[in-house]
Amino acid sequence: MTQTHDDLTELTELEAQFADRLELTPEAADLLFREARSANSFSDEPVTDEQVRAIYELIKWGPTAMNNQPLRIVLVRSPEARGRLVEHMGGNNKPKTSTAPLVAVLAADDDFHDELPTVFPVFPGARDMLAADDANRRTTADLNAALQAAYFIIGVRAAGLAAGPMTGFDADGVTREFFPDGKHRAFMVVNIGRPGPDAWFDRLPRLGYDEVVTTA
Amino acid sequence: MTQTHDDLTELTELEAQFADRLELTPEAADLLFREARSANSFSDEPVTDEQVRAIYELIKWGPTAMNNQPLRIVLVRSPEARGRLVEHMGGNNKPKTSTAPLVAVLAADDDFHDELPTVFPVFPGARDMLAADDANRRTTADLNAALQAAYFIIGVRAAGLAAGPMTGFDADGVTREFFPDGKHRAFMVVNIGRPGPDAWFDRLPRLGYDEVVTTA
Repeated sequence: MTQTHDDLTELTELEAQFADRLELTPEAADLLFREARSANSFSDEPVTDEQVRAIYELIKWGPTAMNNQPLRIVLVRSPEARGRLVEHMGGNNKPKTSTAPLVAVLAADDDFHDELPTVFPVFPGARDMLAADDANRRTTADLNAALQAAYFIIGVRAAGLAAGPMTGFDADGVTREFFPDGKHRAFMVVNIGRPGPDAWFDRLPRLGYDEVVTTA
Repeated sequence: MTQTHDDLTELTELEAQFADRLELTPEAADLLFREARSANSFSDEPVTDEQVRAIYELIKWGPTAMNNQPLRIVLVRSPEARGRLVEHMGGNNKPKTSTAPLVAVLAADDDFHDELPTVFPVFPGARDMLAADDANRRTTADLNAALQAAYFIIGVRAAGLAAGPMTGFDADGVTREFFPDGKHRAFMVVNIGRPGPDAWFDRLPRLGYDEVVTTA
């Protein structure tokens, strides 16, 4: 990704000093976090299934609780499906979702526990424990699918692409359109592609270290 | 991190083929995802505040909805606080949490909306909108704090350290101990350090691409 820092994203002297303590290279830190931005516009360059496959083969290794893997991804490729999706997007998100080279709908699979005998064989009772507790299963799906969504965003950036993650949409509507089985819940839509012209505004401020981290 | 692949983590020919499509270097892909593991034991090497600061200065850039930043982190440094935490950990997690060089408690701040006028000035009504809707505020805190927790795990790995994220603990108990103001909810505990001997079991299987990704 070739992006220029604006004033707010120039590394401060302090940030540069701490960055030296990372094992990750500055180039990778820029690619995944420091220069990466949520794009609001995209170029026409398509995003291929091979690129998405490369992203998945990377981020599938991200850790989850009991190796559960509730995230499901629908790649919205057909114009008809795109139209159905845009219908449920919030007003500001409609133009972005209409024009991004690829749009992915991310959902949590509430039946993820059926995979546990395969993906977490070290605890044979895990599936039945969760099957008996819908509230716990749903909370577990929410948290771990969200972790996996973050890994997915990082993975999109690892592929040299910009992600535009959004939660501003009618989640029940998108769920009905794309997961009619009633066992999934859509929670994020991600625009994916190369950034277009004027793809972002100035960077917004982050909380300071002392506002977030305390010691006990 | 010097880890050896076991049979399950050797890149298959297929995975290697797709990895070529990433812009991220293979070394960084290994550090953050492919060779990184959730450690169950740790060396005695301490984790410094400077390392945690470097992690934060990297991962603070991870995207969230409306640039909200609900994640709060307590570094459990004192033996007294460590004791209070271990008391609430699940049985299997007690020894790990007792011995890790550093343990971090991650919580969602339900009052994150009070920061929105500063961190998301482009939508002046955001704070009041969320102040009037506790359920939406809580759901928003849950999702975005989880995204930030995933960025934190990636950041720990970016610092060359192993993370051991856990959800197996009495969340209400940990919340009472470490966030007595009633406005935060602990949702993850992360052991942090250099891996010790026999730090992990064989890698567990991940779902295949076709089990997770579909096209519409």
